[in-house]
Amino acid sequence: MLELYAFATPNSVKIPIALEELGLAYELKPINVRRGEQRDMSFLTLNPNGKVPVLVDPNGPDGKPLTLSESAAILIYLAEKTGRLLPVAGAARARVFEQLFFDASALGPAFGQAGFFKRSDEKLPLAIKRFDTEARRVLSVLDGVLARSFYVAGDGLTIADIAHFGWLWRREFSGIDLAEAPDVARWYETMKGRPSVVRAIARLNGASG
Amino acid sequence: MLELYAFATPNSVKIPIALEELGLAYELKPINVRRGEQRDMSFLTLNPNGKVPVLVDPNGPDGKPLTLSESAAILIYLAEKTGRLLPVAGAARARVFEQLFFDASALGPAFGQAGFFKRSDEKLPLAIKRFDTEARRVLSVLDGVLARSFYVAGDGLTIADIAHFGWLWRREFSGIDLAEAPDVARWYETMKGRPSVVRAIARLNGASG
Repeated sequence: MLELYAFATPNSVKIPIALEELGLAYELKPINVRRGEQRDMSFLTLNPNGKVPVLVDPNGPDGKPLTLSESAAILIYLAEKTGRLLPVAGAARARVFEQLFFDASALGPAFGQAGFFKRSDEKLPLAIKRFDTEARRVLSVLDGVLARSFYVAGDGLTIADIAHFGWLWRREFSGIDLAEAPDVARWYETMKGRPSVVRAIARLNGASG
Repeated sequence: MLELYAFATPNSVKIPIALEELGLAYELKPINVRRGEQRDMSFLTLNPNGKVPVLVDPNGPDGKPLTLSESAAILIYLAEKTGRLLPVAGAARARVFEQLFFDASALGPAFGQAGFFKRSDEKLPLAIKRFDTEARRVLSVLDGVLARSFYVAGDGLTIADIAHFGWLWRREFSGIDLAEAPDVARWYETMKGRPSVVRAIARLNGASG
């Protein structure tokens, strides 16, 4: 069975959502990041970068087990393993990758740093302004994307929607709300109500104690 | 012919390197980010996120032109268009995506923010320490990867090497050197000497004025 090392974090939640959506069985192995378990030597052998999530597929490619980090790389691996949630060709496929990297390089870092500096004991107005402004800017860009299509990479659900859901689910940490992003708000409500998302969050929260 | 909107930036340089490596002809359209041209309305119609690079393929999928942003998404598009620099299956393929997202979500943001805060007129020790420490940490993780294989995702060059090259080429901006990363230094020298890299940098620098 697939093993998922994860915690109730923006990046972790993407993987149980994809696994539930794809109907793949998995065992959750909680890594308590509040206690710093992601820096334990036993975890660093799975991912030297010290980040959840990590997926272990005992039946990986070439008949060997595969240990894989980076949430979006795991999403692509699961999509290609099952042939779902990622168009096999065409502009639609390019749009999925475009959104996956927009999420990984822009939305995720901005939301993460905005939360860090807003919550830091030492308040740095320049840093707070920099990342709050950037988080709101990327949210506005995403709102423009969702004004033109129902999902973030077209008319159907893809792994790019699952990727963006992670930080939007945890936006309270970043001090960001959806008041000025009506199309993101509409999309978020649709995503949140999917049975796969409900089940994934319940399992992840349960395992994260 | 392919059109590339770019400037001599860490993310832009990846695309001419890939195009030279793949032997694809392209026209460079400079977007002067020092003058803020990436925020001009004419450019925002190409990429509402206001970032270079952007690729326009007049002969895109489904017989239609394709306009694509996000450097790593462009690398994947070019690799799949030509069937090169990205293994079609197996663990080797998963490793390429793992490194592409490690670059996009960790190395790039850390190098970028380290440079910003070190060069800011207002010096914020907490922010400088946060991003300098993180840039050195991710460099050390990459050094571990390159201690185990010649290229970042195995024994052959892939688009993941081209992705990591961008910020390592511009590491002086970030105030980061390779003294404590001997395997990254060895890999960087190999990359820098490739004819495709030499040609790409010359063309990009020439067009960036």
